[in-house]
Amino acid sequence: MEKLNFASDYLDGAHPRILERLFAANLEKNTGYSTDKYCASAKDKIRSACNCPEAEIHFLVGGTQANAMVIKYLLPAYQGVIAPATGHISLHESGAIENGGHKVLCAPEYNGKLKADDVEKMVKAYQNDGNKDMMVMPGMVYISQPTEDGTLYSLAEMEAIAKICRENDMYFYVDGARLAYALGCPQNDVTLADLARLCDVFYIGGTKCGAMIGEAVVFPKAGLVPHFYTLTKQHGAMLAKGWLLGLQYDVLFTDGFYEEIGKEAIRFADRIRQKVTEKGWKLCFGSPTNQVFVELPDEVYKKVEEKVIVSFWEKTKDDYTTIRFATSWATTQEDVDKLLAVLESI
Amino acid sequence: MEKLNFASDYLDGAHPRILERLFAANLEKNTGYSTDKYCASAKDKIRSACNCPEAEIHFLVGGTQANAMVIKYLLPAYQGVIAPATGHISLHESGAIENGGHKVLCAPEYNGKLKADDVEKMVKAYQNDGNKDMMVMPGMVYISQPTEDGTLYSLAEMEAIAKICRENDMYFYVDGARLAYALGCPQNDVTLADLARLCDVFYIGGTKCGAMIGEAVVFPKAGLVPHFYTLTKQHGAMLAKGWLLGLQYDVLFTDGFYEEIGKEAIRFADRIRQKVTEKGWKLCFGSPTNQVFVELPDEVYKKVEEKVIVSFWEKTKDDYTTIRFATSWATTQEDVDKLLAVLESI
Amino acid sequence: MEKLNFASDYLDGAHPRILERLFAANLEKNTGYSTDKYCASAKDKIRSACNCPEAEIHFLVGGTQANAMVIKYLLPAYQGVIAPATGHISLHESGAIENGGHKVLCAPEYNGKLKADDVEKMVKAYQNDGNKDMMVMPGMVYISQPTEDGTLYSLAEMEAIAKICRENDMYFYVDGARLAYALGCPQNDVTLADLARLCDVFYIGGTKCGAMIGEAVVFPKAGLVPHFYTLTKQHGAMLAKGWLLGLQYDVLFTDGFYEEIGKEAIRFADRIRQKVTEKGWKLCFGSPTNQVFVELPDEVYKKVEEKVIVSFWEKTKDDYTTIRFATSWATTQEDVDKLLAVLESI
Amino acid sequence: MEKLNFASDYLDGAHPRILERLFAANLEKNTGYSTDKYCASAKDKIRSACNCPEAEIHFLVGGTQANAMVIKYLLPAYQGVIAPATGHISLHESGAIENGGHKVLCAPEYNGKLKADDVEKMVKAYQNDGNKDMMVMPGMVYISQPTEDGTLYSLAEMEAIAKICRENDMYFYVDGARLAYALGCPQNDVTLADLARLCDVFYIGGTKCGAMIGEAVVFPKAGLVPHFYTLTKQHGAMLAKGWLLGLQYDVLFTDGFYEEIGKEAIRFADRIRQKVTEKGWKLCFGSPTNQVFVELPDEVYKKVEEKVIVSFWEKTKDDYTTIRFATSWATTQEDVDKLLAVLESI
Repeated sequence: MEKLNFASDYLDGAHPRILERLFAANLEKNTGYSTDKYCASAKDKIRSACNCPEAEIHFLVGGTQANAMVIKYLLPAYQGVIAPATGHISLHESGAIENGGHKVLCAPEYNGKLKADDVEKMVKAYQNDGNKDMMVMPGMVYISQPTEDGTLYSLAEMEAIAKICRENDMYFYVDGARLAYALGCPQNDVTLADLARLCDVFYIGGTKCGAMIGEAVVFPKAGLVPHFYTLTKQHGAMLAKGWLLGLQYDVLFTDGFYEEIGKEAIRFADRIRQKVTEKGWKLCFGSPTNQVFVELPDEVYKKVEEKVIVSFWEKTKDDYTTIRFATSWATTQEDVDKLLAVLESI
Repeated sequence: MEKLNFASDYLDGAHPRILERLFAANLEKNTGYSTDKYCASAKDKIRSACNCPEAEIHFLVGGTQANAMVIKYLLPAYQGVIAPATGHISLHESGAIENGGHKVLCAPEYNGKLKADDVEKMVKAYQNDGNKDMMVMPGMVYISQPTEDGTLYSLAEMEAIAKICRENDMYFYVDGARLAYALGCPQNDVTLADLARLCDVFYIGGTKCGAMIGEAVVFPKAGLVPHFYTLTKQHGAMLAKGWLLGLQYDVLFTDGFYEEIGKEAIRFADRIRQKVTEKGWKLCFGSPTNQVFVELPDEVYKKVEEKVIVSFWEKTKDDYTTIRFATSWATTQEDVDKLLAVLESI
Repeated sequence: MEKLNFASDYLDGAHPRILERLFAANLEKNTGYSTDKYCASAKDKIRSACNCPEAEIHFLVGGTQANAMVIKYLLPAYQGVIAPATGHISLHESGAIENGGHKVLCAPEYNGKLKADDVEKMVKAYQNDGNKDMMVMPGMVYISQPTEDGTLYSLAEMEAIAKICRENDMYFYVDGARLAYALGCPQNDVTLADLARLCDVFYIGGTKCGAMIGEAVVFPKAGLVPHFYTLTKQHGAMLAKGWLLGLQYDVLFTDGFYEEIGKEAIRFADRIRQKVTEKGWKLCFGSPTNQVFVELPDEVYKKVEEKVIVSFWEKTKDDYTTIRFATSWATTQEDVDKLLAVLESI
Repeated sequence: MEKLNFASDYLDGAHPRILERLFAANLEKNTGYSTDKYCASAKDKIRSACNCPEAEIHFLVGGTQANAMVIKYLLPAYQGVIAPATGHISLHESGAIENGGHKVLCAPEYNGKLKADDVEKMVKAYQNDGNKDMMVMPGMVYISQPTEDGTLYSLAEMEAIAKICRENDMYFYVDGARLAYALGCPQNDVTLADLARLCDVFYIGGTKCGAMIGEAVVFPKAGLVPHFYTLTKQHGAMLAKGWLLGLQYDVLFTDGFYEEIGKEAIRFADRIRQKVTEKGWKLCFGSPTNQVFVELPDEVYKKVEEKVIVSFWEKTKDDYTTIRFATSWATTQEDVDKLLAVLESI
């Protein structure tokens, strides 16, 4: 019998609605390099969902690619980017940001989140430093929604960070690799329109949120990075068959699908959290989204692993390990029932 | 009635055999980042097709990405890359190579091809220059097979270039964006095994050759670029769902499919060439592959354009324009018959 | 007896006036990083000499450093720089411009000079190319005054290039490594004020023009590259003892000294040119400045070399070699008399 | 009356012995680009002082330039450099290291020093991380001797770090901007020969240690960075008049001068430390070298500032400020006597 697999949210291909459309369009002979009808339509729908009719949108194929390009091409050479110490760009992009020429200025993190106050302190410390001309100027704040720990910024928290950014001429960038799982979460009060209103740039994750591959970078004010299209080619991030990405986002943004696609994954995650709590195990980080972090006694971990593929997160203390269960749009009721039965049996 | 479309060879999605496999594997929950069974199997098949059991293979998503990464990560900072003046890296990658820190040293081109003698002259000129320490050292030769002009290097020509490279400590890199259309061409005498024997690195094009997306970078000697895997992440070129690429190459390299997939496109291109000749128009560059370049009187061009989408190539002289018809694995007998009828009618 | 040395114009240290001032200021305890009184005074004098009271000025230590920094930090990533094929940045900076991320777009050269018409043709060709989004946009024109071949742009020629630049949103940058030898040349009609009026940025060479080391980068409009000061530190081009450079330029720009310092070198070069002509040897490139290029029969070259150190320039044809005699502010009447006697004797 | 100035150790020009030699050699017509007799002689003397006859040596003009170049050109793209959180490259080089493509991996610091144990922990953490392919590999350890806090590594401490480096294939790089003040310190037990034996690369500071400008980068094993000479040109760090640097180092390394030149500065600093202690003020960091860090009550600081220029270091707590007095080779007995009198009078 195959093991249950809750290791991550990028295990599957595309949502059936997308797959079907890809199949139908396969031999249509679309024009190249994102000049096709699907890209045009998807962009319109995203603009509408973001209540931002002027937004400039580019489809890329991965989150690290989006982060690397946005930061490299948006920041001048003398600026760096403030990010939580556990941010994806801080830790898990193999130095992509530095390879693009910019320092990641690590800030304290609280369950994966930045606090506006800490950001302000860093900026003021820089501004008041007698040696600041020899230092890296903070030019951007990077956060992810949800964070690496599955937590969410409230609208108030995001407004506070955006305010600090505006007051100090810093860009505000939100990495939405798992954005559908924020939008689908009952606790969330940050809409796509809020992101468009507060951010200088953000991306709407596709790869983990129903698409086969794809991320949609949104610049609410068009022209922020002149010639981003050409820069996409320069970075090697342009698909000749850009219509493949446009088509997927066209499906995701038809009839509010993107805002729905993560909801069931959240309900499934909530059921897992409930079971974990019943079993007396410790939930970590307070994630309300599709990632469930649990600190398990090692003997329990061992039993779980026999039947379920999970992600090892970290060794927290002697005899205890934190693991992650991730649900996704592809998780089925049946899989969850089986998982709960496994957990119950331990 | 929709226009016939012979504009390029990347108009369609994936070959039906690939689409079918993607469909079947869609919800399989493969492991991430190219650690899956499909990548493993595809690599084995490519190694076997290249008669190169030790080859290191990486799947990327585009040709410019492959070129940018290979050159950036392989060449030391003091070296540049020799390329024909019409090479893709010389002209049409938005400065990707320079953005990666390296000069493209343009060499004379003859219907898109380099001559070994010219390469040797450039290298010797560098080596004999009293100021060479202030100059860019040639460290690599880049060619494409087929070239941008659709022409092919013979095995003898490629051997000659490889020899100059070996004698002068330069890497030899072949861009195979359209490699299937070389392999499927009766005039071609350069096999995959020859490429693996002669090159330090080459890539086997997927995007234009049957795959939905994908390019397979082959290092015949493993380890030439240490940690290329990590560098793929750093460049933002790593797919979380790397299995998507592996699966496609697994199909393409099953039962010699890749060497077959371009053959019909060549036969179709030959029929177009024959008709062009019959009409008394001028074939350009001597391309024997899937790209058919034709110099047309402008009044003929205008008539063609009314019924067929083609690529404008260049304004050659007053009243004459060179255009391109491209066939591909997706071109049908019916499309070609219609095209020939259109041409006949002019 | 020591050989005469006319190999180049950077053989000597500093003009005695500068040396004297360095000596006097040696233990003054000036403040660091160009915040000292000498830098302030020198900048004022340069602004005045350029008739450009708002100019922003930075002192650097070498020409390649100036070129590398100006181009890297001024051009956005999608742009390249047009330069004559024999330009210093094209050939003799070890790939510095490409290492900074930008393509050098080589233009035809005529005795080292660009023609405005050629520049316009290149720009229009780019603008009219259907594929321009995949190409490098010309964003700057680079020339040197005098050129690598010792020739000078007339004011009319420079105005013409500046006009093309303005009309096409390109920066205009003049490399003045040997600028004093242009300003000191009777044929020259381009003043410092003209440069400040026509260029977006230029540098006033010190190393070859009387200073021990130093180049002064002038931005006629302050703020063109925000935080250039910090970028100087980032590039490793900031001297803790920036006052060393300020002091030298303060001397060079006191009482019009810079405009005088090259004059005698030109007169000496003219005497060499006259002798060469008398001897029936061929002057090359038409240089009217401190560099004298001569094509010599190899047996003559051999005899010259026995008594004089010169620069080998190029092997022009069988049995002929082009060499360079360079005079400088440090050349003496006695050296020139000896050289003429040597030439006469051959 | 002019204020006393103990703000830093780069306030003065060159040591009189150097100035005299520069003066004498000013019109000698030396060959360019460090191919002159002074560079050759200086390199020989440095090799001898380092007991390292095979060392490869390059003269540069500044510490940030040396750090930027060594790290950029030595590390492959997938590696970063471990440095103390207060290291010069971590904080005060305007992002030079990141601009060169590499992450600075900050380690805990103890009065400016790294501990070998912490380095080992960081390396092991990387090596044991399941995600290490998505992370930056530690490829180098950077320290300075003396540190930014004026402290010294003992030979045992340096051996321990070197051992961790060797065991884990990391380069070991020592920034010796103030090396003469380590070598001149009685507590120091790390010789030039030790550095050459333990490091892969280090630099011997000139700018703060008697030279007008200059830093000597030493690679004990020649060829570690192939073509470093060309890369120096590429970075814009090559002086046409390289002999200026060679000559200075030739003086500094004649008859053990470099090892002597910092001694008096240390004795002067010791006298200041003694006075500070007598006054009951707090010495910080435990620096035994030419930098004296003192935490002063703000009202004392104010009085000191009226008569002495010092460096503000940091606001340590309410009503207390840490300042720095720096002595140098140029500090005189008279200056120190005056300073002590001022301090006594407060």
